Amino acid sequence: MVSTEEVRRYQVDPNRKFFSANHEEIERGLTTDIYFIRALEILRFLKLDATEVTAEIFARQAGVFAGMQETFNLLKDKKIKLWSLSEGDLFQPKETVMRIQGPYNEFGVYETIILGILGSSSAWATAARECREVARGKKIICFGSRHIHPAVAPVMERAALIGGIDGASCILGAKLMGQEPQGTIPHTVIIIIGDTVKAAMAYHDCFPPDIPRVILIDTFKDEAEESIRVANALGENLLGVRLDTPSERGGVSPDLVKEVRVRLNQAGYSHVKIYVSGGVTPQRIDLLSREAVDAFGVGSYISDASPIDMTLDIKEVEGKPIAKRGRIPGKIENKKLIKLL
Amino acid sequence: MVSTEEVRRYQVDPNRKFFSANHEEIERGLTTDIYFIRALEILRFLKLDATEVTAEIFARQAGVFAGMQETFNLLKDKKIKLWSLSEGDLFQPKETVMRIQGPYNEFGVYETIILGILGSSSAWATAARECREVARGKKIICFGSRHIHPAVAPVMERAALIGGIDGASCILGAKLMGQEPQGTIPHTVIIIIGDTVKAAMAYHDCFPPDIPRVILIDTFKDEAEESIRVANALGENLLGVRLDTPSERGGVSPDLVKEVRVRLNQAGYSHVKIYVSGGVTPQRIDLLSREAVDAFGVGSYISDASPIDMTLDIKEVEGKPIAKRGRIPGKIENKKLIKLL
Amino acid sequence: MVSTEEVRRYQVDPNRKFFSANHEEIERGLTTDIYFIRALEILRFLKLDATEVTAEIFARQAGVFAGMQETFNLLKDKKIKLWSLSEGDLFQPKETVMRIQGPYNEFGVYETIILGILGSSSAWATAARECREVARGKKIICFGSRHIHPAVAPVMERAALIGGIDGASCILGAKLMGQEPQGTIPHTVIIIIGDTVKAAMAYHDCFPPDIPRVILIDTFKDEAEESIRVANALGENLLGVRLDTPSERGGVSPDLVKEVRVRLNQAGYSHVKIYVSGGVTPQRIDLLSREAVDAFGVGSYISDASPIDMTLDIKEVEGKPIAKRGRIPGKIENKKLIKLL
Amino acid sequence: MVSTEEVRRYQVDPNRKFFSANHEEIERGLTTDIYFIRALEILRFLKLDATEVTAEIFARQAGVFAGMQETFNLLKDKKIKLWSLSEGDLFQPKETVMRIQGPYNEFGVYETIILGILGSSSAWATAARECREVARGKKIICFGSRHIHPAVAPVMERAALIGGIDGASCILGAKLMGQEPQGTIPHTVIIIIGDTVKAAMAYHDCFPPDIPRVILIDTFKDEAEESIRVANALGENLLGVRLDTPSERGGVSPDLVKEVRVRLNQAGYSHVKIYVSGGVTPQRIDLLSREAVDAFGVGSYISDASPIDMTLDIKEVEGKPIAKRGRIPGKIENKKLIKLL
Amino acid sequence: MVSTEEVRRYQVDPNRKFFSANHEEIERGLTTDIYFIRALEILRFLKLDATEVTAEIFARQAGVFAGMQETFNLLKDKKIKLWSLSEGDLFQPKETVMRIQGPYNEFGVYETIILGILGSSSAWATAARECREVARGKKIICFGSRHIHPAVAPVMERAALIGGIDGASCILGAKLMGQEPQGTIPHTVIIIIGDTVKAAMAYHDCFPPDIPRVILIDTFKDEAEESIRVANALGENLLGVRLDTPSERGGVSPDLVKEVRVRLNQAGYSHVKIYVSGGVTPQRIDLLSREAVDAFGVGSYISDASPIDMTLDIKEVEGKPIAKRGRIPGKIENKKLIKLL
Amino acid sequence: MVSTEEVRRYQVDPNRKFFSANHEEIERGLTTDIYFIRALEILRFLKLDATEVTAEIFARQAGVFAGMQETFNLLKDKKIKLWSLSEGDLFQPKETVMRIQGPYNEFGVYETIILGILGSSSAWATAARECREVARGKKIICFGSRHIHPAVAPVMERAALIGGIDGASCILGAKLMGQEPQGTIPHTVIIIIGDTVKAAMAYHDCFPPDIPRVILIDTFKDEAEESIRVANALGENLLGVRLDTPSERGGVSPDLVKEVRVRLNQAGYSHVKIYVSGGVTPQRIDLLSREAVDAFGVGSYISDASPIDMTLDIKEVEGKPIAKRGRIPGKIENKKLIKLL
Repeated sequence: MVSTEEVRRYQVDPNRKFFSANHEEIERGLTTDIYFIRALEILRFLKLDATEVTAEIFARQAGVFAGMQETFNLLKDKKIKLWSLSEGDLFQPKETVMRIQGPYNEFGVYETIILGILGSSSAWATAARECREVARGKKIICFGSRHIHPAVAPVMERAALIGGIDGASCILGAKLMGQEPQGTIPHTVIIIIGDTVKAAMAYHDCFPPDIPRVILIDTFKDEAEESIRVANALGENLLGVRLDTPSERGGVSPDLVKEVRVRLNQAGYSHVKIYVSGGVTPQRIDLLSREAVDAFGVGSYISDASPIDMTLDIKEVEGKPIAKRGRIPGKIENKKLIKLL
Repeated sequence: MVSTEEVRRYQVDPNRKFFSANHEEIERGLTTDIYFIRALEILRFLKLDATEVTAEIFARQAGVFAGMQETFNLLKDKKIKLWSLSEGDLFQPKETVMRIQGPYNEFGVYETIILGILGSSSAWATAARECREVARGKKIICFGSRHIHPAVAPVMERAALIGGIDGASCILGAKLMGQEPQGTIPHTVIIIIGDTVKAAMAYHDCFPPDIPRVILIDTFKDEAEESIRVANALGENLLGVRLDTPSERGGVSPDLVKEVRVRLNQAGYSHVKIYVSGGVTPQRIDLLSREAVDAFGVGSYISDASPIDMTLDIKEVEGKPIAKRGRIPGKIENKKLIKLL
Repeated sequence: MVSTEEVRRYQVDPNRKFFSANHEEIERGLTTDIYFIRALEILRFLKLDATEVTAEIFARQAGVFAGMQETFNLLKDKKIKLWSLSEGDLFQPKETVMRIQGPYNEFGVYETIILGILGSSSAWATAARECREVARGKKIICFGSRHIHPAVAPVMERAALIGGIDGASCILGAKLMGQEPQGTIPHTVIIIIGDTVKAAMAYHDCFPPDIPRVILIDTFKDEAEESIRVANALGENLLGVRLDTPSERGGVSPDLVKEVRVRLNQAGYSHVKIYVSGGVTPQRIDLLSREAVDAFGVGSYISDASPIDMTLDIKEVEGKPIAKRGRIPGKIENKKLIKLL
Repeated sequence: MVSTEEVRRYQVDPNRKFFSANHEEIERGLTTDIYFIRALEILRFLKLDATEVTAEIFARQAGVFAGMQETFNLLKDKKIKLWSLSEGDLFQPKETVMRIQGPYNEFGVYETIILGILGSSSAWATAARECREVARGKKIICFGSRHIHPAVAPVMERAALIGGIDGASCILGAKLMGQEPQGTIPHTVIIIIGDTVKAAMAYHDCFPPDIPRVILIDTFKDEAEESIRVANALGENLLGVRLDTPSERGGVSPDLVKEVRVRLNQAGYSHVKIYVSGGVTPQRIDLLSREAVDAFGVGSYISDASPIDMTLDIKEVEGKPIAKRGRIPGKIENKKLIKLL
Repeated sequence: MVSTEEVRRYQVDPNRKFFSANHEEIERGLTTDIYFIRALEILRFLKLDATEVTAEIFARQAGVFAGMQETFNLLKDKKIKLWSLSEGDLFQPKETVMRIQGPYNEFGVYETIILGILGSSSAWATAARECREVARGKKIICFGSRHIHPAVAPVMERAALIGGIDGASCILGAKLMGQEPQGTIPHTVIIIIGDTVKAAMAYHDCFPPDIPRVILIDTFKDEAEESIRVANALGENLLGVRLDTPSERGGVSPDLVKEVRVRLNQAGYSHVKIYVSGGVTPQRIDLLSREAVDAFGVGSYISDASPIDMTLDIKEVEGKPIAKRGRIPGKIENKKLIKLL
Repeated sequence: MVSTEEVRRYQVDPNRKFFSANHEEIERGLTTDIYFIRALEILRFLKLDATEVTAEIFARQAGVFAGMQETFNLLKDKKIKLWSLSEGDLFQPKETVMRIQGPYNEFGVYETIILGILGSSSAWATAARECREVARGKKIICFGSRHIHPAVAPVMERAALIGGIDGASCILGAKLMGQEPQGTIPHTVIIIIGDTVKAAMAYHDCFPPDIPRVILIDTFKDEAEESIRVANALGENLLGVRLDTPSERGGVSPDLVKEVRVRLNQAGYSHVKIYVSGGVTPQRIDLLSREAVDAFGVGSYISDASPIDMTLDIKEVEGKPIAKRGRIPGKIENKKLIKLL
């Protein structure tokens, strides 16, 4: 952990490519708020740095807990006791989600880091769970990486999978959960090729059979027309079509799904599944999952979820209940907590 | 850049501490959406991978541009032409903020990464600018690291500084802009010490004179009372007091600031500045900066800013205007663009 | 005029094809409310049927006056004096729009008919004027006949022309104003032919050159694509394309108009005009007339206009001011009235 | 049916009294939209005019079906098959209300006329039904003729009777349903006579006993006072009093009904019924039918009902399902349809 | 002033007729909150009862000041200094409206009484002023006594006159301001007499000519009719008619005023004034004063005005600024204050 | 009862201290509206002053009845029959709450006074009942005297006790109901003493043990801190602490109550009760009574209750039903009425 003196002398490498912190920088405390470094030095000055404390973390709103594993990894070698909810657990407002007990200097400076990990991961998991709950069992894949910094895209997609969705398009995100990343091809490539059917056939010729053929059908033509053209081209090999209709064409509506389904069926392609993406929210999943949608691609609703505000309070000092003004002194028990350390 | 085959074989190291991506992982494409990897292979199969294209990036809402430097670093060795707005520039809805011209295989797979960098950094810079504009020249410091993953905390605080605020508490964030990190001490430490005045005096004894003495005064006692106690203890050495009143005690109101200012003045401490933190938003800055507040600490309003949705469109293929349905074919000129490559 | 005795004996012809009243039936009073027939008989019984009265008509809301001509035709042979606003005049709430002076038995039983003519025609003219006022000089054609009974469709389209729009599709409606009816071909016919381009070419081959070639382009394909196909087929002969995008495809939006205009221009068809129909209201005209729309087809907004409630009050009996409770006795002067009889 | 050539030469008779179309003009197609005339000529040019098609009509909102009889009369000699809901049937949004099958040239040009008949009649029937449903079995009479063109007043009142109300004041409207028209005398006549009691007594002396004595009592005096005066004058012969209080005197309120009822009863006139008219809507019927109202006169709520938008879609061409973009190809079955031809 | 011991022994006279306090009871402190009696005894116990203090009174909302005279009467023999706004002055939120300086035991126990006098009187004056400001110079009379306890009815009407209205119906209220009480006769008496004209003529015969003849005209007949009857009976002697139409008859509307005015004028009674009462609020005064209303009778809007919350703060003790938490220590100057003692 | 002549000559004593009416002034009729005095003289002129009438009083809204006793006292020597609801009875809109039968001159001029007594007292009782109903059995004390004129403060607090609350701070108000007044000490005194603990100890030393020790704890310090200090000082003798947190410090919130309770319990003072005052309304009682609040002090919610509009109607004259326009003639029976005279 850096000292205030080291902070003073620290210089950023001018050839640094990205501004995100690498793992060893996080561990060294370089992403911590400076006041935690100073706080520890004051306590050391008063010889209070090893004071035995009990800290508890809670949120002001309900949600789905995520981020436990990274927090555990960070603290596993410290001389502390640690209790926590499990990844994917539900929590209520003001419920204790994690308790850390031990000498303050073993973990105090990590407050910034722990709260940041838990607050952001829990927000993503919570948004994913909201989608899950209204999807009537339809498949949901996360496409949100393009909205956030690449350093945290895999953290986000992992948290979304913990929240209960089925797949992720970010390579590292999927791999962290032992899955294969999922996805089709983007509009850019169909535009370069110049025709959706030509792109679909190349896709089919190019990849082994275990990569599913799901074709994006709104690039150049009306979706109802293009669905049939693509189905005519790939026949039994076509797993599904993806509707990503731009808002300038009215987005994907229940009526559009209904019509594409009927037209595909009338043309003999009832095996072709319908994927929907673009501006997908729980409200829209709830609406569209009543129709013949087979899978949803969710982007910004999950990736842009506002972090859940996590608070760490010192609730005991040397075994005695204490709290700042506005908080209840002493531990708040929670039977769902599991002892990790 | 990884291939679909390498993706298939890729295994996550089971001892990996954090789930965020390190710099080399980002560059290798491991945080990219899988469909960009597949897309490139299809184009290669059709021998279209080196097609000359013009891509343009725009947002659907106005904002303050940030993320140019990381994008430039990512692309600087590619055989492309690159135009961009500068860090801190204002942009309007649908205005071209960046244009990339060259063979598609030089940059296409980075779409996920570039949009993620620009969308998140611009959102943070925009939120910071909103604070700046209503602050009537008062100082603003970012305290938002605790709400987001430590890997991106420095990216966020750097973007906030670009947006126009004055300081940051995240060590690496401040250093990236050539500044020293700023902050005082947290509630946790005052609770361990057990008395705000004792903590203030240790702070004073512990640090060299160039570290400013700003003391948090809402931990145990009413702010009006504690301000005077701390001022009595540090006298001329006290730079300021920080009001962080919890919502359970009504938060920081204009009346409270007014009262603390008068009481400090009546006791002869008109040199002591007033810092305000806790739930600070532009609306509250606008309200409180009419009072005798000297500086604001802003947290979640900046760090939790919802990413600005950035879109990359192919606007020319081999020099000819094109676009998908719903978009206007051809380049959209913007005189603010600067040629970087 | 029928008597109560004749009403009693009146039988409807069982072979009657339509339920609307023919002109002679209206004149005989068969569409009058029965109580006016009875009222006259009571007055005759009291020898008061030829009482000299002054009646005034007013509306409770502002509008554009229409229906004067039919009312004049109805009353022109009666021994009365008649003053009226002119067709197309604006009127304010409670302004006298018509005054009839003479023996009550000359016109009293026509109260139902006169109010019905004025109230419905003025409503249509008013709705048309609202469209006119926000159209920035763009052409407006009425397509509303399909929403109302065929007996009044020509009355409605005539009133709309009086209100200030430019053309009508109902044959008799247009002819009543000395115009030729306007329009293209309906979706039904393109569906029977099976292809919009084929239909467009037949249209061109079938009609003399003075019938303008405006082709409906949203039947089978995306509008952007179909516009170009049709323009390629008819070239210089194509006057315009009509966008009638169904709500299931997002309706006609400003973005769609903009895109079709650019794509036509990029393909060399800047002479092709853009017509817009389907759910057109003043709000939408106001929005879309800022774009490159050349003409609007308005249907239900005009035809479905709620009748303006017209009231006829007796204001003088034998030259003395009188009124029922709630009304001001005596004539209300209005300099805009013109003496017709 | 007129041809485009005949349309071109057609001249309106300058002595024409009304602008509404007579029955033979409707049949000749003079109220049709010109584009249907042109459409047929194009099909004939392509020898497709006798193409076998299936057309279906539906509405976008629920309602009560009316207009079947006129449509049947129009089509009964054509070589087509015809299925339809019955007069007075309820229909749901998008439910098939009529199906026409046969060569397009047998009925295609009547699209404007059929939709206009069904859309306007169904709207009137629906509004009448809404009144019926909240009236707690009280009698309802339609007084709406004065708001619409006399040519359609009988169509409207007939549709209102189909919708379920009990009587109509328009002579032809009532006769079309085999009823006698109903009503009393208007304010105008009481004003000419100068006293309500005098008018009531003349009414009584003038007409045979089978014409019910219902007297309008708000012309000159407070309703409570005038009710008693009229009851004193006609005694047992008085069937009812009609309250038509103008908005300037607060309209008819539940309190007014209650008071008039009590005062009549206290004076020994409990046999006198209370009729209410003036601004009567379903909301007001629902409110007032809880009081001692015996009958309602409804005007503009029924006559001004906005036409229900009816759409005719070609669903099969030569037996094969088809549809324009946005619609489901093929017939939509509806067990309520009855085969008429 | 009573002591806690006297309070303990105090017994209410069982023959007491009213529960309001007489003047001597108020002065003895019997309407004070018990805690002020106790407070004084504690201070005496600590020998602090004669501590020199400065107390200031302010309101949290703006208003018109009233109650100064009663407060002055209460305090005029005490050994204090007293500054105050004048009766009828405007005050702003938090503006000092009264300052009392002197030994606490001279006035402290009167806090309840002073605040009660000022808060209620100022509320009534403020409501009266609101009426005054929108009345376009028309006369306003207060009729509010019937809504509040008779003990305070004169206080209320006096405060209303201070607020700026023109007359009062409460005998003592008017006399306190040196005026004669104003009013006509109530509905009850017209009902007993059985006819408005008979009552009007008795009124005229009964009183000397200097008592103005204003007759209430809505008891039995329509106002338009009754106005003419009364004017016919009293002729030149009739000063005015009062409209007090009950809500069951629609209240007094602008249209009713307009109609009564025109009908009176047409009958030659343009000298007869129009008075309006019943549910009169500033909104209705603003609306009706645009019409030919000559005077308004205001009742509950003034009498029911919610007391303005007045607060008394100790701002100096022995000359040193002090305040409780939440208030600014020290006097707040106000140039409008006048020194009374 | 004064005559119009006596009114004319009446002069206010220039030395009068208060403007409220003493009991004998009320009885003499000096707070009556002048028009009732005049009305009686007109009736006497017509020899109708002793007409036998039945008057009924009702309200337009529901409430809790109070004021019966004062009305009874006023009328008990008159030659009338009197029926009334009892103090504290619930009444519904338009329900008869009191009936007076007898010669009009026995009670007619008291209309103003009776309605004023009933309307104001019932409003206070109703507001108190609203508090009672949501308090979950917690104690409620009225502190509202400071908002209204001292002459009616005891009437108000008596009515509040009738409405169902538990205690009152106004000395005379409590005594009227046979209770001892309740309360602690005000902020002013703690400010003069300069320390809450010092004030609490003087309170304890000064009064006999039967006066409960409830100490106000928000004057100088944070409530959580001051509660413990006061409890340390008085120990077992401390009955309760009163929270009256100013709005500038966020008022009393559920969180604050919860925290003070826990901190008192943790310090061994679970016997100390919590009283809450300041801006207390039924909504806040409902919220806070879910927490560990033991008692509430309610001020302006009760004292500022808007008078309930009471109306007196003559319903019979000489035994015959009658009513003015808008009212139902004749008595309205109510089984809850009790015969008092």
